Amino acid sequence: MAQIPDALQAAPDVYKLLMENDRVRVLDVRVKPGQKTKLHSHPDRVVYVLSDHRLKFTSADGQNKELELKTGQVLWIEAGEHTTENTGKTDARNLAVELKE
Amino acid sequence: MAQIPDALQAAPDVYKLLMENDRVRVLDVRVKPGQKTKLHSHPDRVVYVLSDHRLKFTSADGQNKELELKTGQVLWIEAGEHTTENTGKTDARNLAVELKE
Repeated sequence: MAQIPDALQAAPDVYKLLMENDRVRVLDVRVKPGQKTKLHSHPDRVVYVLSDHRLKFTSADGQNKELELKTGQVLWIEAGEHTTENTGKTDARNLAVELKE
Repeated sequence: MAQIPDALQAAPDVYKLLMENDRVRVLDVRVKPGQKTKLHSHPDRVVYVLSDHRLKFTSADGQNKELELKTGQVLWIEAGEHTTENTGKTDARNLAVELKE
Protein backbone atom coordinates (compact mmCIF):
# COMPACT_ATOMS: atom_id res chain seq x y z
CA MET A 1 0.00 0.00 0.00
CA ALA A 2 1.28 3.47 -0.83
CA GLN A 3 2.41 5.55 2.11
CA ILE A 4 -0.26 7.92 3.43
CA PRO A 5 0.78 11.51 2.76
CA ASP A 6 1.39 14.10 5.41
CA ALA A 7 -1.31 16.77 6.01
CA LEU A 8 0.65 19.54 4.24
CA GLN A 9 1.22 17.36 1.17
CA ALA A 10 -2.33 15.97 1.04
CA ALA A 11 -4.24 19.20 1.63
CA PRO A 12 -2.16 22.37 1.11
CA ASP A 13 -5.43 24.32 0.69
CA VAL A 14 -6.40 23.42 4.29
CA TYR A 15 -3.06 23.31 6.15
CA LYS A 16 -0.59 26.21 6.11
CA LEU A 17 2.84 26.00 7.71
CA LEU A 18 3.28 28.75 10.33
CA MET A 19 6.56 27.60 11.92
CA GLU A 20 8.84 24.57 12.01
CA ASN A 21 11.97 23.54 13.89
CA ASP A 22 13.46 20.24 15.09
CA ARG A 23 10.88 19.93 17.94
CA VAL A 24 7.57 21.09 16.49
CA ARG A 25 5.63 22.00 13.38
CA VAL A 26 2.86 24.57 13.74
CA LEU A 27 -0.02 24.57 11.25
CA ASP A 28 -2.90 26.93 10.57
CA VAL A 29 -5.94 24.79 9.68
CA ARG A 30 -8.93 26.20 7.77
CA VAL A 31 -11.73 24.06 6.35
CA LYS A 32 -14.73 25.59 4.57
CA PRO A 33 -18.25 24.17 5.00
CA GLY A 34 -18.54 21.11 2.74
CA GLN A 35 -14.77 20.91 2.11
CA LYS A 36 -13.12 17.50 2.60
CA THR A 37 -9.42 16.57 2.53
CA LYS A 38 -7.76 13.47 1.11
CA LEU A 39 -6.57 10.81 3.55
CA HIS A 40 -3.49 12.11 5.38
CA SER A 41 -1.36 11.50 8.47
CA HIS A 42 -0.46 13.60 11.51
CA PRO A 43 1.98 12.98 14.37
CA ASP A 44 0.88 13.50 18.02
CA ARG A 45 -0.39 17.05 18.37
CA VAL A 46 -2.14 19.75 20.35
CA VAL A 47 -5.10 21.36 18.59
CA TYR A 48 -6.37 24.76 19.74
CA VAL A 49 -9.80 25.68 18.37
CA LEU A 50 -10.04 29.17 16.83
CA SER A 51 -13.69 29.13 15.70
CA ASP A 52 -16.92 27.30 16.60
CA HIS A 53 -17.33 24.54 14.01
CA ARG A 54 -18.12 20.90 13.28
CA LEU A 55 -15.60 18.47 11.77
CA LYS A 56 -15.90 14.83 10.78
CA PHE A 57 -12.80 12.61 10.79
CA THR A 58 -12.89 9.34 8.85
CA SER A 59 -10.11 6.75 9.04
CA ALA A 60 -8.95 4.51 6.16
CA ASP A 61 -11.18 1.65 7.38
CA GLY A 62 -14.27 3.91 7.22
CA GLN A 63 -14.69 4.51 10.95
CA ASN A 64 -15.68 8.08 11.63
CA LYS A 65 -16.04 10.55 14.46
CA GLU A 66 -17.83 13.89 14.33
CA LEU A 67 -16.83 16.67 16.71
CA GLU A 68 -18.64 19.87 17.65
CA LEU A 69 -15.79 22.22 18.55
CA LYS A 70 -15.89 25.49 20.47
CA THR A 71 -13.50 28.46 20.27
CA GLY A 72 -10.80 28.16 22.95
CA GLN A 73 -11.09 24.37 23.33
CA VAL A 74 -7.84 22.37 23.49
CA LEU A 75 -7.49 18.80 22.23
CA TRP A 76 -4.64 16.29 22.44
CA ILE A 77 -4.81 13.99 19.41
CA GLU A 78 -2.49 11.01 19.00
CA ALA A 79 -0.76 10.24 15.71
CA GLY A 80 -3.03 8.79 13.04
CA GLU A 81 -4.52 8.96 9.56
CA HIS A 82 -7.88 10.32 8.49
CA THR A 83 -9.81 12.51 6.09
CA THR A 84 -11.16 15.75 7.55
CA GLU A 85 -14.54 17.13 6.47
CA ASN A 86 -16.33 20.27 7.54
CA THR A 87 -19.90 19.01 8.05
CA GLY A 88 -21.12 22.25 9.64
CA LYS A 89 -22.24 25.62 8.32
CA THR A 90 -19.31 27.70 9.63
CA ASP A 91 -15.67 28.01 8.59
CA ALA A 92 -13.47 25.72 10.69
CA ARG A 93 -10.28 27.26 12.00
CA ASN A 94 -7.74 25.57 14.27
CA LEU A 95 -4.12 25.81 15.30
CA ALA A 96 -2.21 22.51 15.32
CA VAL A 97 1.09 22.15 17.19
CA GLU A 98 2.57 18.85 15.98
CA LEU A 99 5.31 17.25 18.07
CA LYS A 100 8.46 15.70 16.62
CA GLU A 101 10.65 13.30 18.57
CA MET B 1 19.76 30.87 45.53
CA ALA B 2 16.16 29.74 45.81
CA GLN B 3 14.78 27.92 42.80
CA ILE B 4 12.91 30.14 40.40
CA PRO B 5 9.21 29.19 40.43
CA ASP B 6 7.31 27.89 37.47
CA ALA B 7 4.95 30.29 35.62
CA LEU B 8 1.78 28.74 37.09
CA GLN B 9 3.14 28.98 40.65
CA ALA B 10 4.56 32.49 40.25
CA ALA B 11 1.62 34.11 38.48
CA PRO B 12 -1.63 32.13 38.70
CA ASP B 13 -3.52 35.35 37.86
CA VAL B 14 -1.78 35.46 34.45
CA TYR B 15 -1.32 31.77 33.52
CA LYS B 16 -4.23 29.29 33.48
CA LEU B 17 -3.74 25.59 32.83
CA LEU B 18 -5.81 24.46 29.81
CA MET B 19 -4.40 20.92 29.37
CA GLU B 20 -1.51 18.79 30.56
CA ASN B 21 -0.16 15.32 29.79
CA ASP B 22 3.29 13.69 29.81
CA ARG B 23 4.34 15.52 26.60
CA VAL B 24 2.97 19.05 26.87
CA ARG B 25 1.41 21.64 29.12
CA VAL B 26 -0.93 24.18 27.49
CA LEU B 27 -1.43 27.56 29.15
CA ASP B 28 -3.80 30.45 28.55
CA VAL B 29 -1.85 33.67 29.16
CA ARG B 30 -3.57 36.99 29.92
CA VAL B 31 -1.76 40.11 31.09
CA LYS B 32 -3.57 43.41 31.68
CA PRO B 33 -1.97 46.76 30.78
CA GLY B 34 0.48 47.66 33.57
CA GLN B 35 0.39 44.16 35.10
CA LYS B 36 3.77 42.55 35.85
CA THR B 37 4.54 38.99 37.01
CA LYS B 38 7.15 37.80 39.49
CA LEU B 39 10.31 36.16 38.10
CA HIS B 40 9.39 32.69 36.81
CA SER B 41 10.64 29.91 34.56
CA HIS B 42 9.31 28.24 31.42
CA PRO B 43 10.52 25.20 29.44
CA ASP B 44 10.91 25.39 25.62
CA ARG B 45 7.59 26.44 24.15
CA VAL B 46 5.48 27.59 21.22
CA VAL B 47 3.59 30.83 21.79
CA TYR B 48 0.59 31.70 19.60
CA VAL B 49 -0.52 35.33 19.84
CA LEU B 50 -4.27 35.82 20.41
CA SER B 51 -4.40 39.64 20.61
CA ASP B 52 -2.32 42.60 19.43
CA HIS B 53 -0.22 43.71 22.43
CA ARG B 54 3.15 44.75 23.80
CA LEU B 55 5.08 42.73 26.40
CA LYS B 56 8.39 43.36 28.12
CA PHE B 57 10.45 40.42 29.37
CA THR B 58 13.18 41.05 31.95
CA SER B 59 15.66 38.37 33.03
CA ALA B 60 17.11 38.00 36.55
CA ASP B 61 20.24 39.96 35.54
CA GLY B 62 18.11 42.93 34.44
CA GLN B 63 18.42 42.45 30.68
CA ASN B 64 15.16 43.13 28.95
CA LYS B 65 13.43 42.75 25.63
CA GLU B 66 10.21 44.42 24.54
CA LEU B 67 8.04 42.81 21.87
CA GLU B 68 5.20 44.24 19.79
CA LEU B 69 3.06 41.19 19.08
CA LYS B 70 0.34 40.74 16.46
CA THR B 71 -2.65 38.37 16.51
CA GLY B 72 -1.80 35.13 14.70
CA GLN B 73 1.98 35.43 15.18
CA VAL B 74 3.86 32.29 16.28
CA LEU B 75 7.02 32.36 18.40
CA TRP B 76 9.40 29.63 19.48
CA ILE B 77 10.93 30.57 22.84
CA GLU B 78 13.65 28.50 24.49
CA ALA B 79 13.56 27.62 28.19
CA GLY B 80 14.41 30.51 30.49
CA GLU B 81 13.44 32.77 33.38
CA HIS B 82 11.97 36.26 33.27
CA THR B 83 9.35 38.63 34.54
CA THR B 84 6.58 39.50 32.06
CA GLU B 85 5.10 43.00 31.96
CA ASN B 86 2.35 44.41 29.77
CA THR B 87 3.80 47.78 28.74
CA GLY B 88 1.08 48.49 26.18
CA LYS B 89 -2.47 49.80 26.38
CA THR B 90 -4.28 46.58 25.33
CA ASP B 91 -4.94 43.29 27.09
CA ALA B 92 -2.29 40.73 26.20
CA ARG B 93 -3.56 37.27 25.34
CA ASN B 94 -1.44 34.31 24.23
CA LEU B 95 -1.55 30.54 24.05
CA ALA B 96 1.61 28.77 25.29
CA VAL B 97 2.30 25.13 24.40
CA GLU B 98 5.17 24.09 26.68
CA LEU B 99 7.15 20.97 25.77
CA LYS B 100 8.27 18.43 28.33
CA GLU B 101 11.29 16.20 27.72
